[in-house]
Amino acid sequence: MEMENIARSAKLAARAMANLSPSLKNKALLAMAKVIEERAEDIKSQNRIDLKEAKEAGLSPALIDRLTLDDKRIKNMAKGLKEIAELPDPVGEVIEQKLRPNGLRIEKVRVPLGVIAIIYESRPNVTGDAAGLCLKAGNAVILRGGSEAINSNMIIAKVLQEAAYSSGIPQGAIQLVETTEREAVFQLIKMDEFIDVVIPRGSEEMIKNIKANATVPVIGHGKGLCHIYVDKDVDLGMAERICFNAKVQRPGVCNAMETLLVHKDIAGEFLPGMIKKFEEAKVEIRGDEKSKNILSHINNASEEDWSTEYLALILSVKVVDSLLEAIDHINRYGSMHSEAIVTRDKDAAQRFLKEVDASSVFWNASTRFTDGGEFGMGAEIGISNQKLHARGPMGVRELTSTKFIIFGDGQIRG
Amino acid sequence: MEMENIARSAKLAARAMANLSPSLKNKALLAMAKVIEERAEDIKSQNRIDLKEAKEAGLSPALIDRLTLDDKRIKNMAKGLKEIAELPDPVGEVIEQKLRPNGLRIEKVRVPLGVIAIIYESRPNVTGDAAGLCLKAGNAVILRGGSEAINSNMIIAKVLQEAAYSSGIPQGAIQLVETTEREAVFQLIKMDEFIDVVIPRGSEEMIKNIKANATVPVIGHGKGLCHIYVDKDVDLGMAERICFNAKVQRPGVCNAMETLLVHKDIAGEFLPGMIKKFEEAKVEIRGDEKSKNILSHINNASEEDWSTEYLALILSVKVVDSLLEAIDHINRYGSMHSEAIVTRDKDAAQRFLKEVDASSVFWNASTRFTDGGEFGMGAEIGISNQKLHARGPMGVRELTSTKFIIFGDGQIRG
Repeated sequence: MEMENIARSAKLAARAMANLSPSLKNKALLAMAKVIEERAEDIKSQNRIDLKEAKEAGLSPALIDRLTLDDKRIKNMAKGLKEIAELPDPVGEVIEQKLRPNGLRIEKVRVPLGVIAIIYESRPNVTGDAAGLCLKAGNAVILRGGSEAINSNMIIAKVLQEAAYSSGIPQGAIQLVETTEREAVFQLIKMDEFIDVVIPRGSEEMIKNIKANATVPVIGHGKGLCHIYVDKDVDLGMAERICFNAKVQRPGVCNAMETLLVHKDIAGEFLPGMIKKFEEAKVEIRGDEKSKNILSHINNASEEDWSTEYLALILSVKVVDSLLEAIDHINRYGSMHSEAIVTRDKDAAQRFLKEVDASSVFWNASTRFTDGGEFGMGAEIGISNQKLHARGPMGVRELTSTKFIIFGDGQIRG
Repeated sequence: MEMENIARSAKLAARAMANLSPSLKNKALLAMAKVIEERAEDIKSQNRIDLKEAKEAGLSPALIDRLTLDDKRIKNMAKGLKEIAELPDPVGEVIEQKLRPNGLRIEKVRVPLGVIAIIYESRPNVTGDAAGLCLKAGNAVILRGGSEAINSNMIIAKVLQEAAYSSGIPQGAIQLVETTEREAVFQLIKMDEFIDVVIPRGSEEMIKNIKANATVPVIGHGKGLCHIYVDKDVDLGMAERICFNAKVQRPGVCNAMETLLVHKDIAGEFLPGMIKKFEEAKVEIRGDEKSKNILSHINNASEEDWSTEYLALILSVKVVDSLLEAIDHINRYGSMHSEAIVTRDKDAAQRFLKEVDASSVFWNASTRFTDGGEFGMGAEIGISNQKLHARGPMGVRELTSTKFIIFGDGQIRG
């Protein structure tokens, strides 16, 4: 019942949201940014409750880090909302226009999706980002954060609601599911009568479970098992810089490199120096037989390594006989997220860019650039690695649908 | 096992399909058109087996009509394939291009979806259309037609495969599920490892069932419960022509009108003449209380009528107090398909076009125009009434996804 009430009032709010002016939405976003900064102390104090419980429950340091809200992260949440206010409003944009021979004028216009449910884990700052992005695109949002962040999420949602509703956003447009029971999620994802899309952000297991049970359409934001392939005709310095950046700069994120593929003709020259750099940065290397022939001291990679998203300072390394073997390996083990080739050979690059099946494919650049901000889309709600609706970084525009509007003067069909 | 083999070979074929040249695909489409015409007698003879069994099983005349392949329908299937060959190739189209301050050049490029499973009923000509559209967009297709059309579908798929494969299309790109067991469908829709999207075309029940069980993303092509609202400030002649066309010209299709809404100020003037025309065309009228006050002889509409897609010469009629009541009725009972307003009042029209939540919204034109061909998109695989990925008529372009291609010269993230 509680879930149905939330979904019903979200649907009601969504209808009103679709008609709001850009200026009203932006006013609300700025008020939301302001209140986040003003209430920083309250937010931190609720966050401390979550942190205390997380430590008592023995959660991992990485998880506790993601859960922590300090002044800088709270400021960034407010900054994110201000940046969203500055983005162009996607709603009402005419994407296509046609005049048909019978005089019908057809416009394809951008409209909000309606009600979006976002299911996420740990990081409470997602609450602010997701609320802001959905609001900008004219949607009502139902937020379902992790139980470990419930006190932080509740205070953030509360102050955002106050600021939004007092700026004229309809009641029900921003809602947080306060029950931490898992059953609530399974209820939500079957409410296709009220909810237009579910966006799960989290583990592969969680997304798989949601897809298997949802009747609402799902856009999964899953794992990033990214590769870099160093081709034989290559600027070794560039290859080293790109590979190092993709593995070491921020290993815990989805666009970091997990597997390095190297052409056999260059492996002897490239790997010793590269691996040394990685080992200096405390990266554990797990290599296939051919790379162990070059560097016998490294660990063995098992079959399981090729399909593991480490999200840590671990790297699997494989020497391949050809570009084609690299492409096949990526298409077999990759997660259709971000893949890169480093090469001087234009033909090899073109083939890689065309045949690798991923949302973002790089030639001579680090996979770490797959990001809404880096792609010039503004803030992102996540990175989709499915092919329907939105593939790759999803910004405000990807949180919309379209509608055909047809202007006639009495046309009937013959 | 059989389903997995089909899905596996479709996935293999899809990879090769993505790299085919437009000219090779078009050559194959023309060969497919030719073979459909050449083998018309064989197709008709297999179709007669289906028709005989359908009659023995006591299927409805409407169903038997949809199942029947005569010379004209076979010619039209061939014509459809030729028209698809003439459409622009969507694959490789650069949709967006950006140069970032760090020198990265980012292209958003159209790519095939991969493997598409189409689940449909009765009409065997869908086999040709679906195979052609998927091929043009560079996808492999798995076709699953209704058991009542199995002999027709088998011969059509067989000749299409012969023509396609001998033109250089990879084996496995066009496959028909030959088993008529329902279990096969439930296996297919869970094969997300191999299949990128399922498109079910059929009854609301069938689509609901598929959505509830699929792990593969679904684009449902469901019911069309379309309304026309006749506003108070209206050209009565135009309103009459549009309403008559939308109900009578082809009542068995999804973009036909099922419910007529009339503003109370015009109902007394408009309804008697309009209803007379409908009754002359053998349309059964079911009215609400207010319309029965004007025309006491018509039948009563029950609550159920407002949510019924008749697909027949039946029309429900409701007199509304205001534009807002019309919009609310449509958003409550409509199927987000095609909705129209007839009015001279620009403000009323704008409000209707904005607030009615449907894939296609018409001002002063018949709902019957919702169609890929009429919208200038070429042949269509169906009409989506969901909001993700494609809304409204889906043509070749809607059977594609996108990919970001990023050109660098050694960029790393700071």
